[in-house]
Amino acid sequence: MQLPLLSRYSATTMANDSWESKAKAKREAILEAIPKEWRIETPPVEQRIDVTGEFIQRYLADREVEITETTADEIVKHTVAGLWTAEEVTRAFCHRAALAHQLLDDYYAENKKPIGPLHGLPVSLKDQFHVKDVETTMGYVGWIGTFEGKTGTGKEKVFESEMVKELRNSGAVLYCKTSVPHTLMSGETINNIVGFTHNPKNRQLTCGGSSGGEGALIGLRGSPVGFGTDIGGSIRIPAAFNGLYGIRPSSGRMPYEGMANSMDGQNTVLSVVGPLATSVSSLRLVMKALLAQKPWLHDPFVHELPWRHEQEKEILELTGAIGDASKVGRLSFGVFKTDGIVTPHPPVRRAVDIVVKALQDLGHEVIEWKPPPHNAILDEGMKTWVFDGGVDVKAAFALSGEPMADQVKLYENLDKEFTASEIAATNVKIRQLKKEYMEYWNSTQESTSTGRPVDAIIMPLAPFPAARPKKYVYYGYSTWVNVLDYTSVVVPVTNVDKSVDKADEGYTPLDDRDKEIYESYDPEIYDGAHVSLQLVGRRLQEEKMLAIAEYVGKAIGN
Amino acid sequence: MQLPLLSRYSATTMANDSWESKAKAKREAILEAIPKEWRIETPPVEQRIDVTGEFIQRYLADREVEITETTADEIVKHTVAGLWTAEEVTRAFCHRAALAHQLLDDYYAENKKPIGPLHGLPVSLKDQFHVKDVETTMGYVGWIGTFEGKTGTGKEKVFESEMVKELRNSGAVLYCKTSVPHTLMSGETINNIVGFTHNPKNRQLTCGGSSGGEGALIGLRGSPVGFGTDIGGSIRIPAAFNGLYGIRPSSGRMPYEGMANSMDGQNTVLSVVGPLATSVSSLRLVMKALLAQKPWLHDPFVHELPWRHEQEKEILELTGAIGDASKVGRLSFGVFKTDGIVTPHPPVRRAVDIVVKALQDLGHEVIEWKPPPHNAILDEGMKTWVFDGGVDVKAAFALSGEPMADQVKLYENLDKEFTASEIAATNVKIRQLKKEYMEYWNSTQESTSTGRPVDAIIMPLAPFPAARPKKYVYYGYSTWVNVLDYTSVVVPVTNVDKSVDKADEGYTPLDDRDKEIYESYDPEIYDGAHVSLQLVGRRLQEEKMLAIAEYVGKAIGN
Repeated sequence: MQLPLLSRYSATTMANDSWESKAKAKREAILEAIPKEWRIETPPVEQRIDVTGEFIQRYLADREVEITETTADEIVKHTVAGLWTAEEVTRAFCHRAALAHQLLDDYYAENKKPIGPLHGLPVSLKDQFHVKDVETTMGYVGWIGTFEGKTGTGKEKVFESEMVKELRNSGAVLYCKTSVPHTLMSGETINNIVGFTHNPKNRQLTCGGSSGGEGALIGLRGSPVGFGTDIGGSIRIPAAFNGLYGIRPSSGRMPYEGMANSMDGQNTVLSVVGPLATSVSSLRLVMKALLAQKPWLHDPFVHELPWRHEQEKEILELTGAIGDASKVGRLSFGVFKTDGIVTPHPPVRRAVDIVVKALQDLGHEVIEWKPPPHNAILDEGMKTWVFDGGVDVKAAFALSGEPMADQVKLYENLDKEFTASEIAATNVKIRQLKKEYMEYWNSTQESTSTGRPVDAIIMPLAPFPAARPKKYVYYGYSTWVNVLDYTSVVVPVTNVDKSVDKADEGYTPLDDRDKEIYESYDPEIYDGAHVSLQLVGRRLQEEKMLAIAEYVGKAIGN
Repeated sequence: MQLPLLSRYSATTMANDSWESKAKAKREAILEAIPKEWRIETPPVEQRIDVTGEFIQRYLADREVEITETTADEIVKHTVAGLWTAEEVTRAFCHRAALAHQLLDDYYAENKKPIGPLHGLPVSLKDQFHVKDVETTMGYVGWIGTFEGKTGTGKEKVFESEMVKELRNSGAVLYCKTSVPHTLMSGETINNIVGFTHNPKNRQLTCGGSSGGEGALIGLRGSPVGFGTDIGGSIRIPAAFNGLYGIRPSSGRMPYEGMANSMDGQNTVLSVVGPLATSVSSLRLVMKALLAQKPWLHDPFVHELPWRHEQEKEILELTGAIGDASKVGRLSFGVFKTDGIVTPHPPVRRAVDIVVKALQDLGHEVIEWKPPPHNAILDEGMKTWVFDGGVDVKAAFALSGEPMADQVKLYENLDKEFTASEIAATNVKIRQLKKEYMEYWNSTQESTSTGRPVDAIIMPLAPFPAARPKKYVYYGYSTWVNVLDYTSVVVPVTNVDKSVDKADEGYTPLDDRDKEIYESYDPEIYDGAHVSLQLVGRRLQEEKMLAIAEYVGKAIGN
């Protein structure tokens, strides 16, 4: 068992009320929750980089392997038909989740007992969801034993987030919460309770963030489907880095009510909640189930938009999945190989080529995406993350005195809040940028052969397959989607192959940041890592984009 | 012609670049736009309080009276069938609008020529809409000759608001823009260009605001339907005070893109746009036409919610308007006679009784509405109006040096902006209040006999039938709807009858403000004034609420 952070602090030097002792107690409580017979010896990273597939299977019974490697929608078919019981399904995922915890987290993943099975689908949740009987720390030591840092609220371990109730009503089994980076504002997952969470496919890389625990856990098949949140890429990054499908819905589609959050009340660019899973049909399953609960009656931010079958129907007909031959047609894609700010790594560029070729071979159209420059969008979006000058984040760290991880140190150095006028100016500017991009998108109708504007954009989700620890220095490929509130679905495409994905020789970096990212690519280190892309659609196009993502996944053989 | 404000300034004392001279030039340009043969002598208020009906008809040809007293939906039937030409329809409304201007405004209403008829429905617009070839002043002298106070933008008299394009695409004739209070933050309509706008039914009262020009114009049938905006009641107040129907849709339903606004970028409580008209079917007509234009493709804030016939169908079936007898049932209303903060005037209370009795007589259910206290909602909402400490408003006045009207003097005394943290705290609090109210609404399902929560709330829109000038000191009945983003439709109910609506004898006011409003009721002054109520529905329930409002209107004989 690896306990690297603990070794830095001997028990004797820890005061009882120090942040170190509180984090230690929480870690030990998490360990206690793992049955002894599920504990394993974790090999050092050097010995075993990839812990997926065969490696983790050796710790599981055949039946457990079968169950945990089944997609969410297929699991439900088995439980509903009585072929598998909810209990054995949950137990299998608990077992695999416990293994994931020990293999990936510097300490151990938070692992909780199932509360009550219904249809028997285990669903994992990022540690922002409040679940009865379970503590939410959101990675903050200062939140241990509190409700969002406050004591005596009467909500501790009682209050439930709206979506938790709705998942339960839908029959889901909530059996596991997963780690996040403290502040939530990082594409890597690190905090002072669980430590750094590694990538199961390549433990030299980050699992992504902020829904990094979800990504790692589902990547190891310790969960068939889970929910994360995304304000700058936090669902899509861990989905992409772990070879999963993940959707960032537009705001107002899925219920966020009653969840813990960072910088709550910043309402210019809203964090949204959405699922990660091993198949598009699993994403669709849970989103449809939630919408069937009419979340707009319980969350004031959710729009009354039930699942719209007509939206997916158009795509299914065009691609010949349903309907007659007369309705088959082409889809039209925009391809955005680089945003011109940071050049993607060779395997990411190869992934774009794979998808473009597969779609063209099937007769679809791919045109170049030439949008208004992304810089202005990124600049305005970045402002929204520092509106409060770090007040919220600093207060959370001050609760325990714990230090900020390097990945989010940005917040330590802020000292000025935006004024109401400055926020209003940002809101106006972002609205103008949305309008400009919207009209560009409308204008692509002139460039396609379909009579429609481009159906989706094919593009990188990040400049690298996954970031190396502390090397996540550019978020532009994911964040622009949040600023414009578009729908985006991550699609796993391939894996790094060091014999093919050579480093660029003689590349002239665009600037220092581009140089840093260019230099972080090393085929030896990256070999085997997942490579994924995102398909970006317009605002509130969840049904259409899932249908397209499923089609694209099939087109490239996933 | 009354020019009371002008008399205060002799031409010789006006510098050429003074705000007085700029306002005067604008006034004269407005007058020039009225053909000589349409100019009239305006009787003093004392001689003629009510200028609606027979009075204004004497200045119009019979055919003009017929056309201008037809509802929007009926006009379209005539123009589409070729019975009336778009030109004669437009001309008739131009004539009546020119009369309204002279009868109600201290100077004269802004009156513009039609730009191009399509289906031939004249639609009037509050002076926040940018229309090609027409200047937008929004009541600010400093905006004359500019685009929103800025020169050299290239947008002056060229740029068009999104909705203007969509109305045009729908065949509407945009023939007239109407006056607003400067800042838009008043329930009375006063500015230094047009002066104070009176109520056509009773010129001793205000026409309402901020879409006051719309209310007065449509009240005099100088327009069959028009658009206003509402951030605290600004559509509903003029609708109510002029005996009209008006809807405040939830935000994100109708396109606001490209409109002038006060304090643009404040995105906690959004201003929304919506129609006022003489019938519910007119409101429905224009909203359906706009939604058919798919405004979500051109306005990033509009949700993809086409007109939902199923929503109105449920109401139409329950009330027996369509479908078979097996589907007829009861509607369930909550009645909210007073918010407990300010007691409504006697005629407003009588209007509530009229509606409740009519609905009960038809077999519907009316239960008492006992919501969470409104004070907290009003307190938080009020904060959003002063987030910027008056920066935006003061800058607009500073452009010309013109003085603020007493009705909005509040802004003159502000001196502190909210910080990002304070705004975030307000956003969180408002979200909590929305959630609390939402769950109260859900809980009414236990108190109704329909198996549904209450369908709509019957309640006052203001504590008075219309405000007397400078006596609009309480906005709570309208503003809570904006803070919670609910749908609300104003329904005209009755008129003040001094022989019935006696002042309350021996009333003990709740506080000083309640006393001030109590004392502002004088049956002699109010006699004849319109008395209206609002029907409040949940968020984004426009189709349902229009169907209910139409039914209620018929139930009380309108």
